[in-house]
Amino acid sequence: MVSPTQLKENEVFMAFSSYATIIILKMMAMSAITACYRISVKAFANPEDSVVFGKGENAKKYIRTDDHVERVRRAHLNDLENMVPFLGIGLLYSLSGPDLSTALWHFRLFVGARIYHTIAYLTPLPQPNRGVSFFVGYGVTFSMAYRLLKTTWYL
Amino acid sequence: MVSPTQLKENEVFMAFSSYATIIILKMMAMSAITACYRISVKAFANPEDSVVFGKGENAKKYIRTDDHVERVRRAHLNDLENMVPFLGIGLLYSLSGPDLSTALWHFRLFVGARIYHTIAYLTPLPQPNRGVSFFVGYGVTFSMAYRLLKTTWYL
Amino acid sequence: MVSPTQLKENEVFMAFSSYATIIILKMMAMSAITACYRISVKAFANPEDSVVFGKGENAKKYIRTDDHVERVRRAHLNDLENMVPFLGIGLLYSLSGPDLSTALWHFRLFVGARIYHTIAYLTPLPQPNRGVSFFVGYGVTFSMAYRLLKTTWYL
Repeated sequence: MVSPTQLKENEVFMAFSSYATIIILKMMAMSAITACYRISVKAFANPEDSVVFGKGENAKKYIRTDDHVERVRRAHLNDLENMVPFLGIGLLYSLSGPDLSTALWHFRLFVGARIYHTIAYLTPLPQPNRGVSFFVGYGVTFSMAYRLLKTTWYL
Repeated sequence: MVSPTQLKENEVFMAFSSYATIIILKMMAMSAITACYRISVKAFANPEDSVVFGKGENAKKYIRTDDHVERVRRAHLNDLENMVPFLGIGLLYSLSGPDLSTALWHFRLFVGARIYHTIAYLTPLPQPNRGVSFFVGYGVTFSMAYRLLKTTWYL
Repeated sequence: MVSPTQLKENEVFMAFSSYATIIILKMMAMSAITACYRISVKAFANPEDSVVFGKGENAKKYIRTDDHVERVRRAHLNDLENMVPFLGIGLLYSLSGPDLSTALWHFRLFVGARIYHTIAYLTPLPQPNRGVSFFVGYGVTFSMAYRLLKTTWYL
């Protein structure tokens, strides 16, 4: 049963918990970066936001899209698209009794690849920097899915 | 081990389960609201949807974006961006043995803030209504992440 | 407590794990399909991607949106919007001690409906194919939420 101390009794689950939290916090930072960019270049999606920074005609001018803001938003959405599979499969994989060091390397590679992906997206670095980091994260998730299905196939 | 009754033996986990379900249902409502708006103002993204409501030239006219529909979609995406961190971190936090009343207040604040965020986004209410409700939800997730990492740091 | 073998001792959880992994893998395929479409029709969102496939003026021409690419992206986003509720509620529902065969039918219906939704979206099939498959998945998630709240209501 779930005892209050259970997280501390399963090393793989503890490791997953730490890495998952770190990479979720990185994803959450994208919201703050978007907000900062929007305010610094004055490019808003909502009239009620733009009127805070300008009156009348100015406020209308500020409702626009900006290349930098859209770039951060694409990076954010890409994070979300890759984080949901990692969190879902990673959690189940952690509970399927994997080898600790194998699991740790999966988590480390994923977190490293996604942090590098964000750097490559926001700088932006020339391809294939972003492409490779995307596929490393993608491959890690596939590898966990394969190992998970091998141990718990039940349809 | 996971017994069929485990959810009922851990109060924090039961509370997380209830609050998470409520706020997920609220997020799911955004899909229905988007569909209703799309039909009421006749603004579709797909040709196969628009032909249901008009023939020939009319069907083409209905493939367009509409301010109200886009607003609901932005609110929905913002929900998604904040729900994934809450679900991931909240689940792990619930299993890390937190104090029941502390955990309850985290869940309540998050759920309240996100419901108010939706109201502020869809009405729309003037800023800083939406901004403040966003940051309350954001802060609650950060607070859970901090408490979780303090108890289960393992890299 | 969480033992390394716990997944194998709870049939509902094992089943959830298998179905969730399958449907997450399907969602992950959308990223690959988007990338393939972008390359085949040469429609990119980022300058650093387009310069891989053309020089100077050509590279600029390739920064554009394409109907097929946008369709895949909408299908992907719709997946994400429905997968997060399914994963969150489904996991908690699996741990709430449901009847095995009831749970299995929930998972099967959801996975089947979402696979059909993708086929209907990408072909595209005429409505109401996509609409019905959407609402089946939506209804399954609601049904699990209802059963979950009935057993674990704790606010």
